[in-house]
Amino acid sequence: MTNFDNAILLLFCPDKKGIVSRVSNFIFENDGNILNADQHCDSKTNIFYMRIEWNLENFKIKKENIYAEFFKYVADNFDMQFTLHFSKKKFNSAIFVSLYEHCLIDLLLKNITGELNTNFKVVIGNHKDIEKTVKHYNKDLEYFYIPITKENKIKQEQKQLEILKSYKIDLIILARYMQILSNNFIKEYPNKIINIHHSFLPAFIGANPYKQAFERGVKLIGATSHYITESLDEGPIIEQDIIRISHKNSEKDLINLGKDLEKSVLSKAVKLHLENKILVDNQKTIVFN
Amino acid sequence: MTNFDNAILLLFCPDKKGIVSRVSNFIFENDGNILNADQHCDSKTNIFYMRIEWNLENFKIKKENIYAEFFKYVADNFDMQFTLHFSKKKFNSAIFVSLYEHCLIDLLLKNITGELNTNFKVVIGNHKDIEKTVKHYNKDLEYFYIPITKENKIKQEQKQLEILKSYKIDLIILARYMQILSNNFIKEYPNKIINIHHSFLPAFIGANPYKQAFERGVKLIGATSHYITESLDEGPIIEQDIIRISHKNSEKDLINLGKDLEKSVLSKAVKLHLENKILVDNQKTIVFN
Amino acid sequence: MTNFDNAILLLFCPDKKGIVSRVSNFIFENDGNILNADQHCDSKTNIFYMRIEWNLENFKIKKENIYAEFFKYVADNFDMQFTLHFSKKKFNSAIFVSLYEHCLIDLLLKNITGELNTNFKVVIGNHKDIEKTVKHYNKDLEYFYIPITKENKIKQEQKQLEILKSYKIDLIILARYMQILSNNFIKEYPNKIINIHHSFLPAFIGANPYKQAFERGVKLIGATSHYITESLDEGPIIEQDIIRISHKNSEKDLINLGKDLEKSVLSKAVKLHLENKILVDNQKTIVFN
Amino acid sequence: MTNFDNAILLLFCPDKKGIVSRVSNFIFENDGNILNADQHCDSKTNIFYMRIEWNLENFKIKKENIYAEFFKYVADNFDMQFTLHFSKKKFNSAIFVSLYEHCLIDLLLKNITGELNTNFKVVIGNHKDIEKTVKHYNKDLEYFYIPITKENKIKQEQKQLEILKSYKIDLIILARYMQILSNNFIKEYPNKIINIHHSFLPAFIGANPYKQAFERGVKLIGATSHYITESLDEGPIIEQDIIRISHKNSEKDLINLGKDLEKSVLSKAVKLHLENKILVDNQKTIVFN
Repeated sequence: MTNFDNAILLLFCPDKKGIVSRVSNFIFENDGNILNADQHCDSKTNIFYMRIEWNLENFKIKKENIYAEFFKYVADNFDMQFTLHFSKKKFNSAIFVSLYEHCLIDLLLKNITGELNTNFKVVIGNHKDIEKTVKHYNKDLEYFYIPITKENKIKQEQKQLEILKSYKIDLIILARYMQILSNNFIKEYPNKIINIHHSFLPAFIGANPYKQAFERGVKLIGATSHYITESLDEGPIIEQDIIRISHKNSEKDLINLGKDLEKSVLSKAVKLHLENKILVDNQKTIVFN
Repeated sequence: MTNFDNAILLLFCPDKKGIVSRVSNFIFENDGNILNADQHCDSKTNIFYMRIEWNLENFKIKKENIYAEFFKYVADNFDMQFTLHFSKKKFNSAIFVSLYEHCLIDLLLKNITGELNTNFKVVIGNHKDIEKTVKHYNKDLEYFYIPITKENKIKQEQKQLEILKSYKIDLIILARYMQILSNNFIKEYPNKIINIHHSFLPAFIGANPYKQAFERGVKLIGATSHYITESLDEGPIIEQDIIRISHKNSEKDLINLGKDLEKSVLSKAVKLHLENKILVDNQKTIVFN
Repeated sequence: MTNFDNAILLLFCPDKKGIVSRVSNFIFENDGNILNADQHCDSKTNIFYMRIEWNLENFKIKKENIYAEFFKYVADNFDMQFTLHFSKKKFNSAIFVSLYEHCLIDLLLKNITGELNTNFKVVIGNHKDIEKTVKHYNKDLEYFYIPITKENKIKQEQKQLEILKSYKIDLIILARYMQILSNNFIKEYPNKIINIHHSFLPAFIGANPYKQAFERGVKLIGATSHYITESLDEGPIIEQDIIRISHKNSEKDLINLGKDLEKSVLSKAVKLHLENKILVDNQKTIVFN
Repeated sequence: MTNFDNAILLLFCPDKKGIVSRVSNFIFENDGNILNADQHCDSKTNIFYMRIEWNLENFKIKKENIYAEFFKYVADNFDMQFTLHFSKKKFNSAIFVSLYEHCLIDLLLKNITGELNTNFKVVIGNHKDIEKTVKHYNKDLEYFYIPITKENKIKQEQKQLEILKSYKIDLIILARYMQILSNNFIKEYPNKIINIHHSFLPAFIGANPYKQAFERGVKLIGATSHYITESLDEGPIIEQDIIRISHKNSEKDLINLGKDLEKSVLSKAVKLHLENKILVDNQKTIVFN
């Protein structure tokens, strides 16, 4: 492991001969060492997707010029959409939370142990008590109590957006946040808001999925992490998992059994995002893991 | 293992003191040896469910009288609903099938090896070619080719029902049968028709669940076996399972990957039914396994 | 839910006609209402196992006399071994821990939310720093720092035992405690010490199971919770689970990926023990869940 | 999908700048279209592994010359080991079998439906009855009955080897074959013999793993497919999976429950091999799936 930063490109374009060759040459000719390269071609749409990571030690192009150079010498010739990331640039993350704290605590703990490598800047919630928890785990982390009612929603979201801007937040994690975000809010953070839904989507969309699951009599319950889009619970899925239950389990059991699942599924999705391993296209994710 | 038969009671009633005691006394006082007893009480509805199995060696009541005696001395006092089964009485089963043969073949193979202990009496299908497969695995098994169109559906179902009656069928297995049964048909076999749906219900109800799953971009695909009721794909769930997929899998991959899952989930459900381990109440199953 | 306590019997004896009947009559004749009854008969050894739980509202026998009465009127006639428990009697638990804190924290958090219903009385560890963590989650919980070396081991275990006695501990949880307990210690707490081993036992017994797993190139890693007996890592298994890994995962990845698994498997085992759902016989567990 | 063949390279070498670029240029400069490229670098050993697949439509180098050209212009400069495969070149496979037929039948069925795209040339077994099964599924497939005793083992293996040679077999599948192959035999087919072991290796090596699992009281049972090397049950693992069991399951239950698992794990491993997706190095597999 060198002390140098890595550059990461996430890109997609119509498939065509020579993409891998052109991209890898761009790196090699400038003395970069490729660490990882993953690709996928959708056989239906013929779209090519790629994630490529290389070490910047001795790389001939300055960090601040890589974007422009890649655009000029590679992307432009392939009608390519791409984003450029650096492994040492930490995301500034915000956590939104309501009453249930288990996902919040899990994220903060995994941040402390280094499993989630991000700067948690703010926690925003609509319950006052959460502040104590936040401070308990990280006394430097700010908590903003922003209660939401039908009447004040627009105004309060405005407040939230201002906070997010002022802290330069680039990832929002809804850790069992029980309010529905407005489309105006969502548009500001496309594919930058990760939610955990406590069901195996698309089963049990909406409120009280454990109640729905209990009443339907399913034999497995699930959790789904996904990006928030303007369609409720229909954003691109990042990660899902399930556990087995039985007729012996009450609705309350499901709520408790689901907690470890929700924590694990949400933190996996967040980790993938923080490592720039997710590409989103057409309501679906390409997860390079 | 004795050569004697076992009796199995599946029962439910409002919960009340003394049920277990009364039921077990009925068996003990008549010199039966209890082999298994499972129970469950739904804490919401306060309904008590039980499965109890005992050996009939030396049992003082004759097999043909057990039902009446149990009704008189036990069930009637507790407002109990119950069914009585004998472990040596094999179910007469029919398999319905369309184009896909994998579940059909799996059921026939597991019957040959003794994993599914039933008399397969007839296979009914709406594709002519299936006959060859059926005869290949069991040359004594009858295949009835009954093609279905919108126009002939009522008449053809009548034909199916006549066949089922004449073979004294008491379990119907829809092994990827692609026709929707009419309510008239279903009413004749309440909780006696087991279907395999190739999704994690209630996600992806209806046609082409793998296509739906592919388009939604889920990270797991599932299969669900359930009893057929008048609400399509909404009958009581018996068994479910899932496998992990990724963006690399095409819709065709899902179809192939799902086959082993469908086979395993369907045959598990059928086995549970054949062993009289399933109680159905209120659209949900109590599975005593 | 009444305010009354439940009694729970865990018993086993050679199988014989009339056990279920005799046990359930004992409860019914004394006006108890059976809430749960599970049983199992080992077809090889012919040993009968049972867990039965009933509500004590209106029960005619006083709590302090149930043991003796059951012994006299039931157990003695069937050569039965049994233990009696009460649902409102909380276990006094001790946690042993070394360097890794994730299981410790998970247990404390699940205690706070009521998912693990026990009195955590003491935490004993061989690393000084852990005290801060313990106090962070529960400032009333005592931490005892007891470092272990080859030389002082016997003396230090004596100290540990004195602490456990003085706090009337009846369950010890080894939450990634890295010291091997002596047989003398273990004998004091038969089937009362639950360990989490970070492998799918019996694979990778002993030290560094993730290293062993990495080197062997397995495609799944596991965790196992079990009672501690005098044979290292060979005690009766309570719960196991696995997660999928790949060649892409480094040894360090396995350590991190395994954490959520260890937490979940250990806390499930502890919960089963706290709810008196585990019977141990012949190096194996009967888990009534 | 064109009618043209794909070329597939599996390669590894010490990691170094420019490998991806050099390999992809070799393909691009000769007018090949890369369909898939996967790579992995072991961070401990610094070995780079790659699988790359491209379409041969318009490829400037003739199929028969690709190996030599790649060796000369690429491999030789990077101290690279590689194998070259063509997607339309089917493997000639042999199945070895003893008494249990379920894996054999599953392989033959998946071959018929196109899920396993190989030429099954011969089945070799040490039980006479299997011939009927083989002919039942594929009347053109040869069955060789070669019984093995301690005394005749060397001679019989010689016979097996002659058969394998004469049918130009390049993949041997041990479908629950209960004989241990000699090192002489194994040496002839390095990483070309796939076995299914009915346990979660390295747990329960050797005979009767289900008996061992039953006696140990594990809560999950597994199956492992691996290449055969000279160390029994210690060859590189290709695929593993598990199912949940409980104290209720007898040893015979485990045997039956394990069958679907064995079939699924073995056929997945065979499919990966047939698609040239497995690289073996240092007793471990890199599985590009």
